[in-house]
Amino acid sequence: MNKYSKNLLTSASKIKLIATDIDGVLTAGEIIILESGEEIKVWNVRDRQGLTLLRKNLPEIKIAWITGRKSKQVELRAKEQKIDFLVQECKNKVTTLINIANKLDISLSEIAYIGDDVIDLGALKKSGLSVCPKDAVFEAKKISKYVSQYNGGKGVFREVCELILKSRKMWDDIIKKQL
Amino acid sequence: MNKYSKNLLTSASKIKLIATDIDGVLTAGEIIILESGEEIKVWNVRDRQGLTLLRKNLPEIKIAWITGRKSKQVELRAKEQKIDFLVQECKNKVTTLINIANKLDISLSEIAYIGDDVIDLGALKKSGLSVCPKDAVFEAKKISKYVSQYNGGKGVFREVCELILKSRKMWDDIIKKQL
Amino acid sequence: MNKYSKNLLTSASKIKLIATDIDGVLTAGEIIILESGEEIKVWNVRDRQGLTLLRKNLPEIKIAWITGRKSKQVELRAKEQKIDFLVQECKNKVTTLINIANKLDISLSEIAYIGDDVIDLGALKKSGLSVCPKDAVFEAKKISKYVSQYNGGKGVFREVCELILKSRKMWDDIIKKQL
Amino acid sequence: MNKYSKNLLTSASKIKLIATDIDGVLTAGEIIILESGEEIKVWNVRDRQGLTLLRKNLPEIKIAWITGRKSKQVELRAKEQKIDFLVQECKNKVTTLINIANKLDISLSEIAYIGDDVIDLGALKKSGLSVCPKDAVFEAKKISKYVSQYNGGKGVFREVCELILKSRKMWDDIIKKQL
Repeated sequence: MNKYSKNLLTSASKIKLIATDIDGVLTAGEIIILESGEEIKVWNVRDRQGLTLLRKNLPEIKIAWITGRKSKQVELRAKEQKIDFLVQECKNKVTTLINIANKLDISLSEIAYIGDDVIDLGALKKSGLSVCPKDAVFEAKKISKYVSQYNGGKGVFREVCELILKSRKMWDDIIKKQL
Repeated sequence: MNKYSKNLLTSASKIKLIATDIDGVLTAGEIIILESGEEIKVWNVRDRQGLTLLRKNLPEIKIAWITGRKSKQVELRAKEQKIDFLVQECKNKVTTLINIANKLDISLSEIAYIGDDVIDLGALKKSGLSVCPKDAVFEAKKISKYVSQYNGGKGVFREVCELILKSRKMWDDIIKKQL
Repeated sequence: MNKYSKNLLTSASKIKLIATDIDGVLTAGEIIILESGEEIKVWNVRDRQGLTLLRKNLPEIKIAWITGRKSKQVELRAKEQKIDFLVQECKNKVTTLINIANKLDISLSEIAYIGDDVIDLGALKKSGLSVCPKDAVFEAKKISKYVSQYNGGKGVFREVCELILKSRKMWDDIIKKQL
Repeated sequence: MNKYSKNLLTSASKIKLIATDIDGVLTAGEIIILESGEEIKVWNVRDRQGLTLLRKNLPEIKIAWITGRKSKQVELRAKEQKIDFLVQECKNKVTTLINIANKLDISLSEIAYIGDDVIDLGALKKSGLSVCPKDAVFEAKKISKYVSQYNGGKGVFREVCELILKSRKMWDDIIKKQL
């Protein structure tokens, strides 16, 4: 089991919003396209389980998906999973985070942001809890408070859900209830 | 070749039902979706070969697929492969296992259960032979009697078939017949 | 560069037919299925390049694809790539190899066979040059004259083409012509 | 962070055209085919980000995609991403590079070429900056000025964009602007 530092757990315990990039975080960064132009997305079942566990135990935490690209499927998936904020074709992730923070009347230190590439650097720097996948670009890994033990698309979002539940000392109870 | 402990082989020799989770065990846990919403599933040819070998040599062993999700394809594949019990949208895997055990008039110690995530913990704990993929979550690996040498979708189910055939001392004959 | 033993190169120099399993050798063993039941296959561009190089330099060597499964796509791909022998729904790979050997009036020692699983063991044992992917099952690796440096679907067939070209001392010339 | 040699950075600083193979460089080399014959391509979001960063900062650098295969999708993707030169069904990559160089009135030493297989060797040898993926064939790795830290389809093209931006001492500013 990954040991999280006390400092990291303190940051995690304050989170009221998890904002995440999509390609390279919720997916492995593949852009899969049919001849028709239709796009296939590969999500991860563990991330969905993490969201389920988080919502059952901390329903007050909001979720935002923020991406520079645009796809019909992302819209449908966000609706299906009741994602609170979906921002596609995002030009500036910091501005977007600030807008969402204002709407929720929370501070940036109460936001967990997950990103993997250069365009995520500002949002990573300004968030209270910055996390990147194990296979993020060098600069994202350098600036993030925590580098996930998982690659993009392999459970990074799930690990953030767990981290937050652990920071509130809720994880052991969740496990015990299953046994 | 993986060496199995005597204790593990004893548990395996008693198995009358193999029950398995689908996403993350029979697949690598990817949820692959077309824009239309249609879902693509990635199965593994080795798992199918394992099932074929098991049925040829131990046709009395039953198979159950138990999943919290629901998909048309899973239904079709289960029918095609003559899976004895298919339970989709399962809310409680332990209750489901007990129901199947009652129908078959077998005890939980005669069930092999394969699962990879937190919602599988109860079923893993109560089964006679608990197995998880090499890339299962920490808690599943901690509680399982055996951690497969394979990741989800890479032959975990096949390894359980082999393990059972080996526990009955049937494997060497199967190999010899091929040579 | 992989060093091949003198013994292996001698076997390779006699080959007149390369026979190969499909799932787990030409592919990574994934069975990818749409809800409609339509199957997607993932081939490797390196294997195709290997076939092109082999045919350009040793056009007399025949190719056979032998599989226990059946798919429309395999038929189309075999036609497209002018595969000399395609046997689908094969029940006994040894018998199939003997039939093809008889048709070509060659001996089994002149056949290279590539397989990855238990049902390939007989064909691997009886062929002059037996090769399996790096991720083949234990018993296939144990019996094969050569274990490829590549996993299934990652260039195993290509390596066999190279090995044969090297055994005839044609490889260095092929490379020089490119430079 | 990868350290680039002074020699490599000098070559990179002169580049006016990046020419790249597609299968095995921009993709992992998988050829993914539906029963209908329709082909699916898997691109990487990092490569796209790299192209965006390059064009924003060095819009004068041209891009060429050169492939021995032919697909409708590649044509559409090339148009969408405003690739300057697309050559499909290429028989001779060196001749193609010379033709493009002539059109642009540049020398081969001002071309970066990325390729992974035997048919790329000539183009790799003659270009000013030759790069191959980490999982390229032995001969491509041997001849390339730089072997990428990434496998094909995992960000090789992106690394070349970064390398060129770093060679012009533009990278640190790009990162600073994000923070």
